[in-house]
Amino acid sequence: MHIHIQNDPGNIEISATDWEAANIAGHQVTFGTSAADFNAQAATVEILIAPPWKLKNLDLSTAPRLKILQTPVAGVDGLAPFDRIPENVLIFNNRGVHAAKAGEFSLMAILLLVNLMPVFITNQRAGIWERIPSGLAARKRLTIIGLGALGGAAAAQARRLGMTITGLRHSGTPHPDCDFSLPPSALDEVLPTTDILLLACPLTPETENLITAARLAALPRGAGIINIGRGRLIDQEALLDALESGHLGGAVLDVFAKEPIPAGDRAWGVQNLIITPHISADDPATYNALTLEIFKENLKAYLAGNRAPGQVDRQKAY
Amino acid sequence: MHIHIQNDPGNIEISATDWEAANIAGHQVTFGTSAADFNAQAATVEILIAPPWKLKNLDLSTAPRLKILQTPVAGVDGLAPFDRIPENVLIFNNRGVHAAKAGEFSLMAILLLVNLMPVFITNQRAGIWERIPSGLAARKRLTIIGLGALGGAAAAQARRLGMTITGLRHSGTPHPDCDFSLPPSALDEVLPTTDILLLACPLTPETENLITAARLAALPRGAGIINIGRGRLIDQEALLDALESGHLGGAVLDVFAKEPIPAGDRAWGVQNLIITPHISADDPATYNALTLEIFKENLKAYLAGNRAPGQVDRQKAY
Repeated sequence: MHIHIQNDPGNIEISATDWEAANIAGHQVTFGTSAADFNAQAATVEILIAPPWKLKNLDLSTAPRLKILQTPVAGVDGLAPFDRIPENVLIFNNRGVHAAKAGEFSLMAILLLVNLMPVFITNQRAGIWERIPSGLAARKRLTIIGLGALGGAAAAQARRLGMTITGLRHSGTPHPDCDFSLPPSALDEVLPTTDILLLACPLTPETENLITAARLAALPRGAGIINIGRGRLIDQEALLDALESGHLGGAVLDVFAKEPIPAGDRAWGVQNLIITPHISADDPATYNALTLEIFKENLKAYLAGNRAPGQVDRQKAY
Repeated sequence: MHIHIQNDPGNIEISATDWEAANIAGHQVTFGTSAADFNAQAATVEILIAPPWKLKNLDLSTAPRLKILQTPVAGVDGLAPFDRIPENVLIFNNRGVHAAKAGEFSLMAILLLVNLMPVFITNQRAGIWERIPSGLAARKRLTIIGLGALGGAAAAQARRLGMTITGLRHSGTPHPDCDFSLPPSALDEVLPTTDILLLACPLTPETENLITAARLAALPRGAGIINIGRGRLIDQEALLDALESGHLGGAVLDVFAKEPIPAGDRAWGVQNLIITPHISADDPATYNALTLEIFKENLKAYLAGNRAPGQVDRQKAY
């Protein structure tokens, strides 16, 4: 098949060397960065590998043989509602690429909250030395929203700390690293017994603004929040309010309503908040190799007439 | 035997309830906080449980039957050179009490350095959003100085991340959670291949100022430092210089040359430094119970004529 890779130089860039190392034999591959590069290949391209934001200036109707769009990212909220992609084109993402790194980041974020580090880091800024003891992670109750690659990796890491873990996912079926697996509808029931709430679900119409001011208020005083999903899963201003009021003990946020966080935004100065610049899940040393490995699995399934493991459900939007 | 527990209210305080829960039967126990409380018991006391800093105003020569001093802390550098304690008195510490908490703190600190969090936290203070990717812990080389309870727990946690671990300890004998176990004399040899240096050894005349400016310079550029031992293991000013110059990528320090860090000290503002107020190893929920459990083991060994697991070697000073 003719596979065209549309790169975003300096950001997501799969090279000919990456391609060769992936050992995906028997296909023609072309590379490009501009719309003109794509147009030159459009007549024959069957599989397009491109990040969602690079599709904005491409006219996919000029590619009549296109069968598969493979995104080299896991979150496809940037593509929804998918009307720019012809209906007969299958959309595959690279879910799983972020798992190892997101698992380690989640482990760190959980330990940051258990050890009251948001408070110590706020105190450090003000030159305040105040010893506040804390216990072990094992006595804490973790609730994870979303048990895909990210949430599953977080659960596996937290498991090793002996935490009590509740996972919410659509199916509600048991997960090997969760003590309890429940459907999303159980959210309001589990919030009052949650010490740490970790968001690892995709952003969809259903999950947008999932964590409202009322739900933050339902968490016990001193609870902590981790967000490695998408900023708009949470009412960000309500979250900042709950940190300032002291209702929440701390938060570790890797994603925000607006990224980069604008200069002068109140988020920069809010107490007991640790900000990371959307880096929780990307391991540059393995990213391209893993993406192509996942693409290979998707392609193999497709050629065998099976559903690809990375196939995106346009209704669910992930 | 007559056991007297000298408490430091609000800090280290073993209650009658703690004592009963420990189920150490067959002994007479008394409690006190002031020198007068101790003096009232001195004539008959055989075992004294007291933190090092509470001994300064006690005259142990008034306790002719004293056989054992049990410290409810692990670090006895505050007692050295031990000349305030009669030679025939055995000194036991509660080594091991800190292991679980120190292991989790070390795991967190390692992940903080791997994820470049000292830089992100410094950037947050300045309102700077800069995405700097980082890899997995598994590709990092960790060197631990001291493989006692703290260092051993750190090694066990780091092991689970798949790190390459070198441990330095007096014996140099293999450790189950280290890839390499070497004697302290190997330090200068291992520094150039160390990504993260974790100090978990006691403060003794031998280890004071162990990490000099020259040794910091021997670490590769971008290396990180974790100190959960004692502040004076490191030339603190040289460490702060190495952070400011950018030679070190970051540091997570729980202990300092002077504690609390004085107001206005340059440490508060140094870039890429995460400060915690000496909280890395204390779990208040289990501290007293674990201390008494360790005391029970020490006492059992003593009564059986064996060397107690917590016996302090006055020469080694730990």
